[in-house]
Amino acid sequence: MKQRLAILGSTGSIGTNTLEVVRQHPDRFEVVSLAAGGNVDEMVKQVEEFKPKLISMSSKEAAEEVKLRASYPVRTVYGGEGPTEVATHPDATYLVSALVGSRGLLPTLAAIREGKTIGLANKETLVMGGAIVMEEAKKAGVAILPIDSEHSAIHQCLHRENPSQVKRIILTASGGPFRDWPREKIEGATREEALNHPNWSMGAKITVDSASLMNKGLEVIEAHWLFDLSYDRIDVLIHPESIIHSLVEFVDGAVLAELGTPDMKVPIQYALGYPERLPLRTETLDLVKLGALHFREPDSKRFPCLQMAYDAGRAGGTMPTVLNGANEVAVERFLQGGLPFPMIEEIVGEALSRHKTVTDPNLEELFEADRWARETARRCLEMKD
Amino acid sequence: MKQRLAILGSTGSIGTNTLEVVRQHPDRFEVVSLAAGGNVDEMVKQVEEFKPKLISMSSKEAAEEVKLRASYPVRTVYGGEGPTEVATHPDATYLVSALVGSRGLLPTLAAIREGKTIGLANKETLVMGGAIVMEEAKKAGVAILPIDSEHSAIHQCLHRENPSQVKRIILTASGGPFRDWPREKIEGATREEALNHPNWSMGAKITVDSASLMNKGLEVIEAHWLFDLSYDRIDVLIHPESIIHSLVEFVDGAVLAELGTPDMKVPIQYALGYPERLPLRTETLDLVKLGALHFREPDSKRFPCLQMAYDAGRAGGTMPTVLNGANEVAVERFLQGGLPFPMIEEIVGEALSRHKTVTDPNLEELFEADRWARETARRCLEMKD
Repeated sequence: MKQRLAILGSTGSIGTNTLEVVRQHPDRFEVVSLAAGGNVDEMVKQVEEFKPKLISMSSKEAAEEVKLRASYPVRTVYGGEGPTEVATHPDATYLVSALVGSRGLLPTLAAIREGKTIGLANKETLVMGGAIVMEEAKKAGVAILPIDSEHSAIHQCLHRENPSQVKRIILTASGGPFRDWPREKIEGATREEALNHPNWSMGAKITVDSASLMNKGLEVIEAHWLFDLSYDRIDVLIHPESIIHSLVEFVDGAVLAELGTPDMKVPIQYALGYPERLPLRTETLDLVKLGALHFREPDSKRFPCLQMAYDAGRAGGTMPTVLNGANEVAVERFLQGGLPFPMIEEIVGEALSRHKTVTDPNLEELFEADRWARETARRCLEMKD
Repeated sequence: MKQRLAILGSTGSIGTNTLEVVRQHPDRFEVVSLAAGGNVDEMVKQVEEFKPKLISMSSKEAAEEVKLRASYPVRTVYGGEGPTEVATHPDATYLVSALVGSRGLLPTLAAIREGKTIGLANKETLVMGGAIVMEEAKKAGVAILPIDSEHSAIHQCLHRENPSQVKRIILTASGGPFRDWPREKIEGATREEALNHPNWSMGAKITVDSASLMNKGLEVIEAHWLFDLSYDRIDVLIHPESIIHSLVEFVDGAVLAELGTPDMKVPIQYALGYPERLPLRTETLDLVKLGALHFREPDSKRFPCLQMAYDAGRAGGTMPTVLNGANEVAVERFLQGGLPFPMIEEIVGEALSRHKTVTDPNLEELFEADRWARETARRCLEMKD
């Protein structure tokens, strides 16, 4: 049976890699619906190649331009509700959820309720809504399969192992572009320097999060929900080469790891084809050529965001939502230029310290906390200006 | 249900580690029968602690001394047929096959025919009798579970994966004590230097085989039978730290690996408890403390035995038996002292080049080839003296 895909974020890094997997396996996958932001040229190309029934763009103008340039009458929607329409298209069996940021939560949740299998690249879905999302997925009997390379590695290592035999998981982190920088140099880091990731080619937001280690913090929270593990059973290891994508330690002392050359197509195809592995044209791992793999501890003095994420995760309730919302605002401002890099951690820290956690929040309370975090972050930023 | 163990080689390195696993899990395992060589003191201790029903020693004198010193009337046997009696004890459900050398084949085969599950540490069982052993195991519906750390790592990585999705396996090798030695220095290596293994504490024969890389060669042949893979899908990687115990590459480019501090109890318990993992008191892997893992290609110029094993494996028939028999004689002589280290590879090479392979050999032909190889090796040694 063909898996029929809805893809949120089709013109981004995960989206285009997903379409490459589809291209290599036309007998296994077809594209039903696509959602993107404003990249009309790329969307037109995707429409022509994959012939989706429905596409969504962020603005009316972009949607109309795609419609105009398409060679067949593709249905187009736009705006805030667009991604949810794409995610819940009745013909789709599988949602690749790869929007950036908190906008990913609602359409993903809607697809879960419609019984679609979820390939999850949008961290915020679980960072914000972990409790609700996992409960709804359980209720709907829906599998949430990770697409992040770290979580995919854990997923591969756990494949049909007994969860009660897991001692801890170890998420690896490249350490980002500032890995070897002294704190003083990090404090003067520019936008361009933060965007210069050593191993992975990703979107701007996630690349800055890699530089601050906030990305790893968000992944820790995501792992907590995906694998149902308490925070003291989730560790982080700096591994500059990004070859070991993550590890699982079992009760017998054995450790399983998944390795490979950094290529997002591998975790994407694993999530799409699970439990089967599909042949993929990808660069073979050559450990001899690499010569060595290195490891060190994360340095919470130079990179405080990781610890903030652990703290927010342990506090639970709306706290991870505030961590994420404040971080999104701060990173956005940093990407506009002019903001010193450590202001990100400062803004997030202030928002967290001012927030009173709401335990067991419903969706409304989550979005209220998100709004509050963004406002608070903006106000903090204004005061610093 | 308790697994009831017969252990061949109970006073050796694998045997004592197996008994340590039994000690940590008295609710899961009990000892039915034990076979050892001449170590009376250790056997008496094992008899007192584990109360086996039957033990075997290599000589009548040793067996009688154990009987005399035991606090209860343990049944004792001795000599060539002893291990087979131990392996096929009617109360045993599981055989740990850990004799050294070709003597392991017949008792292991007898246990297979009796329907016992096999935990296999004796390489020669598959190196010599691979085709017959695997066929008999299939006929008897018996599982052969590897105890070697490398094959256990592969076994763990393959756990319920689809065999058709395996591209290749990669066996790691520490490289042994002569890893960094130039060829001229290896040519003058002494017995003591060969026995000084950097990572693993093992018996003398296997430690010398590690120094020549013949051990890895025998493992390649073993892996060919255990995992039903052609030789061009089995690679060897030098990894000095012995932390990654082996790896599996899949069709999608993903690579799974099993890692851990070198401790034979981990693969032993995995083979004993499979498919369950049992809690084990063992040293936690600390990659931060290790700092780095290194990799390089095996050097067939300095270590020709590995290539000889590939060639013998590919030739098939009685050729691997000749490789193994000649090697056993040469290593035995090397351990007695006075033989230059490279004489091992020379003797093995000569035996291989003089042998005419018998294809699809029966057991008699295998043992005839074994006898021939030993005689040929001895004659070659005499000529060199």
